[in-house]
This record gives sequence, structure tokens and C-alpha cells, in this order.
Amino acid sequence: MSKVENTSFEDCLQRLMSSLEASLYEEATTQLASLHSAEIARLLEAIPPKDRTQLWLNIDTGTQGDILKDLSEDVRTQLLSEMEVDAIVKATEGLDMDDLADVIPNLPESALHNLLLTLDHKHREYLKRVLSYPQDTAGGLMNIDIITVRDDVSVRTVIRYLRLLKEMPIDTDQIFVVDHDYQYIGAIHISILLTHEAEQNIAPLINKDLRPIPVDTTEKKVADLFEQRDLISAPVVDSNNQLIGRITIDDVVDVIREHAEQSVMSMAGLDGEEDVFAPAMQSVKRRSIWLGVNLITVFIAVFFIGLFEATLQEKIALAILMPVVASMGGIAGTQTLILVTRGISTGRVTTSNLKVLMSREVAIGVLNGIIWALVIGVATYVWFADAILSAIIALAIIANLIFAAFSGAFLPLLLVRFKIDPALAGGVILTTITDVIGFVAFLGLASLVI
Amino acid sequence: MSKVENTSFEDCLQRLMSSLEASLYEEATTQLASLHSAEIARLLEAIPPKDRTQLWLNIDTGTQGDILKDLSEDVRTQLLSEMEVDAIVKATEGLDMDDLADVIPNLPESALHNLLLTLDHKHREYLKRVLSYPQDTAGGLMNIDIITVRDDVSVRTVIRYLRLLKEMPIDTDQIFVVDHDYQYIGAIHISILLTHEAEQNIAPLINKDLRPIPVDTTEKKVADLFEQRDLISAPVVDSNNQLIGRITIDDVVDVIREHAEQSVMSMAGLDGEEDVFAPAMQSVKRRSIWLGVNLITVFIAVFFIGLFEATLQEKIALAILMPVVASMGGIAGTQTLILVTRGISTGRVTTSNLKVLMSREVAIGVLNGIIWALVIGVATYVWFADAILSAIIALAIIANLIFAAFSGAFLPLLLVRFKIDPALAGGVILTTITDVIGFVAFLGLASLVI
Repeated sequence: MSKVENTSFEDCLQRLMSSLEASLYEEATTQLASLHSAEIARLLEAIPPKDRTQLWLNIDTGTQGDILKDLSEDVRTQLLSEMEVDAIVKATEGLDMDDLADVIPNLPESALHNLLLTLDHKHREYLKRVLSYPQDTAGGLMNIDIITVRDDVSVRTVIRYLRLLKEMPIDTDQIFVVDHDYQYIGAIHISILLTHEAEQNIAPLINKDLRPIPVDTTEKKVADLFEQRDLISAPVVDSNNQLIGRITIDDVVDVIREHAEQSVMSMAGLDGEEDVFAPAMQSVKRRSIWLGVNLITVFIAVFFIGLFEATLQEKIALAILMPVVASMGGIAGTQTLILVTRGISTGRVTTSNLKVLMSREVAIGVLNGIIWALVIGVATYVWFADAILSAIIALAIIANLIFAAFSGAFLPLLLVRFKIDPALAGGVILTTITDVIGFVAFLGLASLVI
Repeated sequence: MSKVENTSFEDCLQRLMSSLEASLYEEATTQLASLHSAEIARLLEAIPPKDRTQLWLNIDTGTQGDILKDLSEDVRTQLLSEMEVDAIVKATEGLDMDDLADVIPNLPESALHNLLLTLDHKHREYLKRVLSYPQDTAGGLMNIDIITVRDDVSVRTVIRYLRLLKEMPIDTDQIFVVDHDYQYIGAIHISILLTHEAEQNIAPLINKDLRPIPVDTTEKKVADLFEQRDLISAPVVDSNNQLIGRITIDDVVDVIREHAEQSVMSMAGLDGEEDVFAPAMQSVKRRSIWLGVNLITVFIAVFFIGLFEATLQEKIALAILMPVVASMGGIAGTQTLILVTRGISTGRVTTSNLKVLMSREVAIGVLNGIIWALVIGVATYVWFADAILSAIIALAIIANLIFAAFSGAFLPLLLVRFKIDPALAGGVILTTITDVIGFVAFLGLASLVI
């Protein structure tokens, strides 16, 4: 993957690492000078914290601001904690308002206070407003750099107005039309202004299909909307339908990427923002929670093995083979679980089609159960030359795979009902179930027969 | 998650399911009529194949085309296979060229042939060109709807030209500047045309920092570029720097989403395009590969248990507790593995910083090992009141957690070197390693002492 594709970035990193290993910090700083702020951010995330700090303090404050907004939270917090209050204020005062709003939650109290003093009234009010919305809603994603016009003017008037402005906010693909009360009416893509005659009135050019996004919409839903409708930017309105800002695709792309990373990371109980070079103690603390949860579940599973101590004593081959039954159930169940969890998060699976889904998954479980029961039964016979043992493991496999399919389909919807993220908790609960069922089915059957 | 956020979609699905259960296909079709094609696509993916076909054949061919481009590959192939050749041609002939290029790989041969006959020479040539690039490269992502101008004209001339065109291709945020040989020079954001005086020559307005994307760039790298540079669209050039098309963010968003889904799905050996309602037999076949791989690995692990049959016979508590050692190693190793795999795919982890990373992970492994060895040692003593058994399991846990950290950090880079996707194969190989180390350390130590 990375080998071929990130060659240039990898080269940068390699050069940087050799400079740092030789403690040539000035040379390292020079290497960064020609790079884009997003690339510098990635490089900083790819080096150990000690070198990171050294390098960071050599970068000029103007560039620091741009880099800060591209850093992941963990690394950003680390670097901010190494800076003087004055330096933080200097670095952040040049940022766009919406980027500033992203950085603010990580600022130390004193720096935040001083920073607010440097802003003029209008910007301070704006910042207060943006910060009043939860970060993971449309309000937290939006910026207020919008251009608005009334609906009773001509194309010429609009263009004259735009020329007076001298430049448009970055990524402006449309201007918004509002009434006298700043109520949102519709949007006009700026390409429309360029392709229509100057005398034309704008009223018939307004796109009224672009529905505004309510300010309290969750960022996940905003991302879905952008993706489904192929939006570049969209207006945001408050509860009175007054236009208060717009969301642009670049911020939505960050949301999509973060959610995607989070869902992979949470499968191992990790935080999506985790710094690869965070201090070991910090990581030990974070990861321990997950190891602790797992320990509880595995002790539940082995408690059930303990119930069959006498049976195990009788036939030690059972102890050798029991991981096979548990493991196959775990894998089959996880396949169903991931498919259904992903279906839920994309909206394709709900309670209304659960029944159909469930019967399909159980059918797959039955078929898979029979196939693998045969394979494992034969393998067991070859190893232990014990027909009864073969029959027992085959039956246990069928039982566990059917139950695994059932649990894998049912569990995510149950968790969602209790407002628990199935991507986080699903895997660990499911494998506990398949372990217990696997051990009980296998050892329980054996205790009846032997 | 979905409960609150997709209320309206969920309602649609519920109404649709009840109509379908009552076999009211006409009513169901009417329910779809007012929806956006992307929403219809999602609904079709959320219902069983039989109903899907019924509903599909009731939708008019104009809408079918738009829906086709939004469907996942599995469902698209299913629906296309149910259609007559003529109907396919009718449904697809209205599509934009780049959407058509996406659909074509799923078309039956005969439909493709007839479809090509309906296109004029220019479009046929275009389609041939687009199809000549691999789908997962810049060439496969791009479309050719671009507006180009020369660099020696005024803003007025450009606007006059645009008014002649009457409309711009969808999502045009910039026009491209080329020389007499169609070599790419730079781009002008269309907002620039609106904010500058008509007499102004465009030469100084050209943004030469927007570097063109070579046509053979992988789609993953294209997505990284868009994300890092916050691009809305970008020019694509061939190996002679001639401008041949542009990539727009909406297609890049699809790539980001697909890659994200793929990486979650591949952790359970699933295909990212898998239809939640695919025929059971098809899913059994697909999932069997993964179950088969797992069976081999688990037999490797239990083979090692088999080596200690005599020791197990001596002390059956070992059999009861051995899953604890294996499982804790598996979880700890997976945490490292996922962190490093994600670091590799974002470019933050390479061979140049592997040494630092490795020592950090092993340090975490040692710390975690000591902590959990104590906890598990005490728990074991409480359960079995056997000090030697406690000491054995504690040492085995420390050994397995250290080795798990080492393997979790090392394995992904090793797999990448052999061009194997670590997200797909990493987990299964790693847990085999931690299982084997766990069983051997625990039972091996026991066989020495007991």
C-alpha cells in the first residue's frame, strides 16, 4: 500500500528522521519550509514527541496556525502545551473563524482568554455563536462566510456587487438568496451568473430545490446528505429558517474520514485520535480499559469450561479441540455482525426488514454449519481416530454457527436500541456469546455421551 | 445511531415494506416517485431481491439510469440481469459519460454492444478512452466536461464565451488555462471572474499552484490529495502534460467512503460491495473462504496444545485457563496491529520510524503485561488456590503480551513489503501467533514445573 504510493512523503520522512537522529534541527526545519501545511502536520504526527517539540518551536508562528488546524487532536494538544501563551495567540490569530473554532477546545484557558482579547467585536460574537453549537452538529461544521442577495435584482447588479467585494470567501460555489427578514429562499450557483445575460432578473435562476440544513443536524447526517446529493456547499438555517451560515465539502470530507477511522479503531477499543507516538503510560491507560473488558468476558467463557472439569479429565482431546468450536463460531458471527452493523449505519438495515435479514443469515449459518461440521468432523477423525468425538464436534459446530448467525444479526439492533455503538461493543459481546455456546455445546454434548 | 437520525428514511422503508408484504406493487412504486434517485437506490438495497426486481421493473427507464449509478455493484448486477437488452440501453443512454463508465463493467455483453451503437462518434471515442484507464486510477475517476481558455484573453472575453455556452458542466468551480498545444498551464476559480473588472487580462489571475494530477495516479492517492489540499476539482493530464479531464470532489467522496467500508469489511474477510440480501448460497461461498482460512490457523494453534497432552492430563485447570492467555494476547496485539496498519495507510508509519514505534509498543506491552499478569495471577489464585499455577499464568501473560506488541507492530510492515493488505490478512495471522505463543508459553512453562 504505502510503499509505492507515498514515495515522496516517505522520502520526506526519511530525510527528516535522519536529520533528527543527527540532532540537526535547523536542517530539519529547512526541509519543512517548502511543504504544504497539511504535509507538515502529517510529518509531525510521524515523529516521536521529543523531536516534534524541538521542530515545532523552530517553525514560524504564521505557519504554525495553519498546521494546527490540520493536526489530530492528540498531537495538537501536546504541541499547544509546549507553547507560551503569547506564541499561541500569535499562531492562532491569523486563522479563519471556522478553523479557529476547531482549535479552541484544545487551547489552554489562559491562551484562550488572551486570544479573545485580540479579536474585534464582530469576530468575538461570531466565535461565541459557533462555540455555542455542539461540535458534531451542522452548527459546529458551518462557517459564516456567506454571500447573500435579494431576489428582485438583475444578474448585472449581483456581478457589480461581487466586484465591489473584490473576492469571495474560499470555496464559494453558490450565493444565497434571502428575503428582507434574512429568511432563506434559495441558492444560485455562481456559474449561472456567468452564463446568463446581464439584464436577466435573478428570480427565475434561483435553485429552490437546495433545502437548507437545520443547525442542529448531526454531522453524520450532514455527511450522508452531502454524499447522496453530491453537494459542494449547503446553507445552514436556525429554527426560524434564518440563514446563519454554510457548510462546505472540505469539512464534510474530514467528518467522513474521521467516522471511518473511528469505526475501525473502535473495533479494538482504540480512540480514533490516538497519536502513534503518545507517551507509553498514556496508551497503557487507554488500552487497559479494553483489555479489562476482554478479561471479564474471557473469564465468563472459561467459567463455563470449568463446569465440565470432570468430562475434560475423562477425555483430554476435548481440551485440545475446544478452541476450534469457539473460534469458528466467533468468525462466522463476526461476519454477520459487521455486515449488519454497516447496514444499520448506512440506513439499509432497520427493524422493518430485520425479519427477512435474520432468516437469510440463519440460512447461511445452517449451510456453513453443515459444510464445516463435515470438514472438521473428518479432520478430527484423522487426528484422533475417535468416531464419537468426531460426531460430537460436528454437532457442536452446527449449533454454534447457527447461533452465531442469529446473534450476529440480532445483537447490533439490540445495542442500537439501548443507544450503545455496535461497532464498539458488538465484537466483544458476540465473541463472548460464541465462546460460551461453543464450549457448552461441545463439552455439554460430550458429558452426555461419554 | 440510525434510530434517531434516519427517521424519514426509516419511515419510507417501513411504508415500503408494508406495501410489499401486501403485494401492493403499484402503491410501492408511487411511494418512490417523489424521492431522490440516491434514496431510491438505498431503499432498493434494503429490500429482499424478489421485491426489488418487481419494484424495479415498474420504475420508468429515465429514473432507472440515475438509480443505477447510485447502486452498489452487487445490487446493480442483479437488477441489470433482470432487464431486457433494450430496456438497459434506454435506461443508460441518458447518463453522463463518467457515470456510464462506472456502470459499464456490470453490463451484459449484448447490452453493451447495443448501447455503444446508440452513441455518437465523439461519445463513443470518449467512452473508449475512459474505459482504457483502470477504474481505480485518476483516469477512471475523471470526466471530460471541462472548460478551457487561453491565457492571453480578458475577463470580458471569457465571460462572453461562457454566456455563449449557456451553461457550465455540473460542479464547475474552475476553468482551466491551456496553451496552443493543450498543455496545462493553470486554473482560474470562476469566482475570480466575477470579482474582477471586465478589462482585466486573465494572465495574472491564473492559479499556477494547482498542480495537475497524472492520469495513472491511484484513486487512493487522489483522495489523499483532495483531502489534504481541500480541493473541489482538479485537472488531470496525460504523460505529455496535456489536459484530458478533471476530477470532482463528489466522485472522490465515493472513493473515500468505499475505502473506509472496505477496510472494516475486510477485517472479517467480507467484500465491501456485499448486498445484505444476496442469495444465501452466494454468501456461503464468499464467506467460506474466510472460515477456511480461520480453520487452518486454529488447527495450527490446537496442534501446539496437542503437544502438551500429558501436562494437561496432569492438571486439568491448565485446560480451563489456557483461553485466557491466548485471548489477552490476541486483544493486545490487535490494538497495536490496527494502530500501525492505520498509520501505514495514512503514511504516518514507514520503515524510517519503525524502530521508535516498535520500542514504544514493546514498552506498552511490558507495562500491560505486568499489570494484567498481577490481576490474572490473583484471580487464578482465588479460583484454584494454587500458587504455582498463578505464577505460571502470570509469566505466560507477560510473555504473550510483549510478543503480541512486537508482532502487532512488525507484521503490518512485513505484509506491506510482500504486497499483502494488512487490513485483510493482519488480524488472522496475528491471532494465530498470539494463540500459539499463549498456549506454548503457558503449557510449556507448566510442563517444566509440574
